Amino acid sequence: MRPADFPMNAWYVAAASTDLSDRPLGRQICGLPMVFFRDASGNVAALEDWCPHRGAPLSLGRVVEGRLVCGYHGLQMGCDGKTVAMPGQRVRGFPPVAAYPVVERHGFVWVWPGDAAQADAARLPALPWASDPAWVYAGDMFRVGCGYRLMVDNLMDLTHETYVHADSIGQPEIEDVAPVTRVEGDSVITQRLMQGISAPPFWRQALRGSGVADEVPVDRWQVCHFTPPSHVMIEVGVAHAGLGGPQAPADRRAAGLVVDFITPETDTSIWYFWGMARSFGIHDAALTHSIREGQRRIFSEDLQLLEQQQRNHLRHPGRALLGLNTDAGGVQARRIIDRLIEAESVRPAP
Amino acid sequence: MRPADFPMNAWYVAAASTDLSDRPLGRQICGLPMVFFRDASGNVAALEDWCPHRGAPLSLGRVVEGRLVCGYHGLQMGCDGKTVAMPGQRVRGFPPVAAYPVVERHGFVWVWPGDAAQADAARLPALPWASDPAWVYAGDMFRVGCGYRLMVDNLMDLTHETYVHADSIGQPEIEDVAPVTRVEGDSVITQRLMQGISAPPFWRQALRGSGVADEVPVDRWQVCHFTPPSHVMIEVGVAHAGLGGPQAPADRRAAGLVVDFITPETDTSIWYFWGMARSFGIHDAALTHSIREGQRRIFSEDLQLLEQQQRNHLRHPGRALLGLNTDAGGVQARRIIDRLIEAESVRPAP
Amino acid sequence: MRPADFPMNAWYVAAASTDLSDRPLGRQICGLPMVFFRDASGNVAALEDWCPHRGAPLSLGRVVEGRLVCGYHGLQMGCDGKTVAMPGQRVRGFPPVAAYPVVERHGFVWVWPGDAAQADAARLPALPWASDPAWVYAGDMFRVGCGYRLMVDNLMDLTHETYVHADSIGQPEIEDVAPVTRVEGDSVITQRLMQGISAPPFWRQALRGSGVADEVPVDRWQVCHFTPPSHVMIEVGVAHAGLGGPQAPADRRAAGLVVDFITPETDTSIWYFWGMARSFGIHDAALTHSIREGQRRIFSEDLQLLEQQQRNHLRHPGRALLGLNTDAGGVQARRIIDRLIEAESVRPAP
Repeated sequence: MRPADFPMNAWYVAAASTDLSDRPLGRQICGLPMVFFRDASGNVAALEDWCPHRGAPLSLGRVVEGRLVCGYHGLQMGCDGKTVAMPGQRVRGFPPVAAYPVVERHGFVWVWPGDAAQADAARLPALPWASDPAWVYAGDMFRVGCGYRLMVDNLMDLTHETYVHADSIGQPEIEDVAPVTRVEGDSVITQRLMQGISAPPFWRQALRGSGVADEVPVDRWQVCHFTPPSHVMIEVGVAHAGLGGPQAPADRRAAGLVVDFITPETDTSIWYFWGMARSFGIHDAALTHSIREGQRRIFSEDLQLLEQQQRNHLRHPGRALLGLNTDAGGVQARRIIDRLIEAESVRPAP
Repeated sequence: MRPADFPMNAWYVAAASTDLSDRPLGRQICGLPMVFFRDASGNVAALEDWCPHRGAPLSLGRVVEGRLVCGYHGLQMGCDGKTVAMPGQRVRGFPPVAAYPVVERHGFVWVWPGDAAQADAARLPALPWASDPAWVYAGDMFRVGCGYRLMVDNLMDLTHETYVHADSIGQPEIEDVAPVTRVEGDSVITQRLMQGISAPPFWRQALRGSGVADEVPVDRWQVCHFTPPSHVMIEVGVAHAGLGGPQAPADRRAAGLVVDFITPETDTSIWYFWGMARSFGIHDAALTHSIREGQRRIFSEDLQLLEQQQRNHLRHPGRALLGLNTDAGGVQARRIIDRLIEAESVRPAP
Repeated sequence: MRPADFPMNAWYVAAASTDLSDRPLGRQICGLPMVFFRDASGNVAALEDWCPHRGAPLSLGRVVEGRLVCGYHGLQMGCDGKTVAMPGQRVRGFPPVAAYPVVERHGFVWVWPGDAAQADAARLPALPWASDPAWVYAGDMFRVGCGYRLMVDNLMDLTHETYVHADSIGQPEIEDVAPVTRVEGDSVITQRLMQGISAPPFWRQALRGSGVADEVPVDRWQVCHFTPPSHVMIEVGVAHAGLGGPQAPADRRAAGLVVDFITPETDTSIWYFWGMARSFGIHDAALTHSIREGQRRIFSEDLQLLEQQQRNHLRHPGRALLGLNTDAGGVQARRIIDRLIEAESVRPAP
């Protein structure tokens, strides 16, 4: 088996908490077919999507009293990957299936596809906004036919907004300011401050939604934070010009956090969990709806490009790409990713 | 060429007689693209679906006076795979295409994809109900994206009814009775008798359709007969409890024969001919219709599961499966299949 | 890399001139993904469909002042495959992408996928009708899932009209006259004259459209001209019988030129540019429309057959085909094609 092209010893978002109803959910993560379900206490379990009886996918079954019941012949699987019971059978000798460490936190289900012994909930990313009642979050998920590195590149170089999102968040001024990129341990931060510009349509709407004047010059900021394996949080906002950008008083700005969890499905496809957290207008459901649908429309604009870029890369494997100053964020993030993969390949997989 | 993963020296159902109109029918059988048509006497012929002229599929042509006329340049093909004529050409030296032994019997077209010298109509299965005026048959065909072994497994272990067909023919009592399996030569019989139970919905309808009370306890039986290469006949029925099951008087029972002819298209797909023969209410066209549509709905419930099971197996080639007592029917049938394939591989293919 | 299965040093039609609007056009030609666009002077350029920055397809971008602007990050590409500019970047060291020789002539965009040093506009086919005001042309393009050789075969053996196009241009008399085939240098001509026959529906319509009686016996001719790499021009027409066929007076005949430019997309698919040029009724737009739609319907009849023939050939690679007298046109054309490919393989590709 070829070495994995993703860090395996890492927490990935597998689903939003709300995706997990009383039915099992089948989803391939990092090339591994998994099934997710809630046990009798409501805790989420993640197993290999394979019934040890005849190899049917457990995800086609149902959940009964916290056990996953295979939809073919009724084998009952426990959260640890061991068969609990099967009608008319003694199951003691049944081979177990893999159980993956899984934690539900911050409204998401996180799974660790690699060595279970190394799974540590303390390594889950801290998302202060997720438990802060002064903040609200809304988002959704896309399946995209591109490798996760291409999506990390996309989010760590926002100059693409001018071209891909010209009608919403893009504006020529983005290009006039070179981004500044720095690496802090396993994190990469790339940021850009545009001063005294006109707010683009998305941000005009956000200013108006916050009750702030939107026809005046603004300072606009974008601070992209990459953390392994493939999470990108982007502080974004606009404030009336000259008031210090992110430090401007709340009644003179609109700001938020673009949340991007990128989870490999296969080498060439991802589950892309996107959303926005914000601390203004948090009780305004119409605004929440409007922002989410705006994001949906904007992020949809990237899909065709990313998928065709992926196809181009498959056609020319190994062909050199340029690493410009604007690409520094993605380039540094890839270095960290490659280093983590390399480190995993030294010790044999479990 | 890899050895075939099916017995080739065997009769397979290629089509229902009614599928063959005045147009040729192209269908891949055991990995071999074939074309079926009727000659001037109405006899069915089966040829390789390849025009010796330029390699067009003969199945896109038409039948004229019992000859198969290629739809590209009009080559006329006889039932023996030899070119009969072609406008403006002498055809004596044209290379023949393969002609496969074919017999039309019992309302089906049977083809022998292997060594023609061994084809013997006497080896066609005897289907007494098919020519008995006291019986009626109705059915249809599905193309399913799974290997034929998985469908044999499915039909030789009816405990799956409880889970896959919970709303129609499934019932928990199936699991309370272990099946009894025996091998007789190249046949496998696995049977189960459930006594003093409540009839499931499909059988209630059948009882009512037969004018028999359906709200009383019944005995229910299932006797699955596997015969090579991949036919499964299942005697099924219910009778008022305590009257001897299949031996109960006709006015106290409803019984029939589930007919399953499984024909490999490729290693991972089949033509699944399914139906039911019965000896009650045989002139009741509405009942016939109702039973067939009931079967269609029930058998449709297996498809997603079988196709995803196949995908799971392709992902984990050779991964061990369990052979439980309930699986004995399928396990024994596979042994017979494997033995037949092994025997064919000893003598070189023709 | 395997040697190309097409002549590469040749002019292929990549698009109709009218296909090129103010947006770039992505199209794979001879296995090479290309992008076509017009520069500021309206001249067409053809480049590799790959942005040297991050490998996005340039064809998803837009054309601004004659430069191709990548739709991802705004890199500006010139007609020579060199980067002209990019916001905030010095581009001098950017690697170029391939630029392909391209000429717009006769209403089509012609591209030379091979060695640019050998590209010579003098080798473009002469199409006198295209610039003759006494002629009019109409046509369209299909993508077909078959290799270009199969389409050349199709057009160089019109006996297939009797079977594939029985309702329009086919007629049994085609088979009564053997074609006469000759090779002249790199060209192949195969012709057939049918005398004193009844005109088939398409030609009846053409005669009526020309104001010529259509219910009288006619002579009908077909003269197919193959020229490399894969162009087929077919002189076609009918005239009242006994007047010398193509030499008959204009008021006793209807004639035209079927135009077929076959451009490989991949080994097993083509861009098929088809149309008809004619010198009668040239100002009759309704007739033009009617002829084009008639051709569209007729040529559509070939598609299923060609695509399934291709699949049959893939299933039986190298299986022998017959080369009958009617196939001589295609057989000779293939010989010329093979010779050209062989000649290219002697000198190493650029």
